[in-house]
Amino acid sequence: MSDANAFATQFINYYYSVFCSDRNNLRPLYREQSMLTFEGAPHQGVNNIIEKMTSLPFQRVAHRIASLDAQPSISNGIFVVVTGELLVDDEQNPQRFTQAFQLIPEGSTYWVLNDIFRLNYG
Amino acid sequence: MSDANAFATQFINYYYSVFCSDRNNLRPLYREQSMLTFEGAPHQGVNNIIEKMTSLPFQRVAHRIASLDAQPSISNGIFVVVTGELLVDDEQNPQRFTQAFQLIPEGSTYWVLNDIFRLNYG
Repeated sequence: MSDANAFATQFINYYYSVFCSDRNNLRPLYREQSMLTFEGAPHQGVNNIIEKMTSLPFQRVAHRIASLDAQPSISNGIFVVVTGELLVDDEQNPQRFTQAFQLIPEGSTYWVLNDIFRLNYG
Repeated sequence: MSDANAFATQFINYYYSVFCSDRNNLRPLYREQSMLTFEGAPHQGVNNIIEKMTSLPFQRVAHRIASLDAQPSISNGIFVVVTGELLVDDEQNPQRFTQAFQLIPEGSTYWVLNDIFRLNYG
């Protein structure tokens, strides 16, 4: 599982750095088949997913990763689960979140088929 | 995504009811290729996974599901993420957890290829 972990760490660090700088630039990571379930609401396809991401009501966001676990999955995919905290704009209190991905290989890189995001309320 | 959600709900309710009554009986849900990452530690194969589950240091456990999201995935699999709380033995304070699964179809049922479990500490 170590290759999956190493790749997943690299991918997730890249994903959140792009998310923090310009969510529009996440577009190349999704395909028409991609699905995002954000706080229970489903979105499918690149345009719908990027529209959801860019419409989130904050300007700045920082992620602190508490755990990142990955496993090799079917069809050479990678199954990734992240838990952590995020801090938006001038908020003082971080919010806990869980995000999980199924990554699919394409050439030397991967794209996101499945993406599920949840805030973990107290 | 509604079929995936309906099946995942049924599967997860069954999974936690078996988990609470006798963890040995989770055995039919795993295969030799199955992987469990439990609090960061990897376990592979039915025997190793069931040994880990049955060695957990509590007699009784109850799960309260806060969110359950599912999506259809590659090769007709189902990608499932659960967040919630669990209460073990006589503890008064529930612990938050995240658990994610990649389910693989086999005949009219599914088995667990990927399983990642994390407690979400405060």
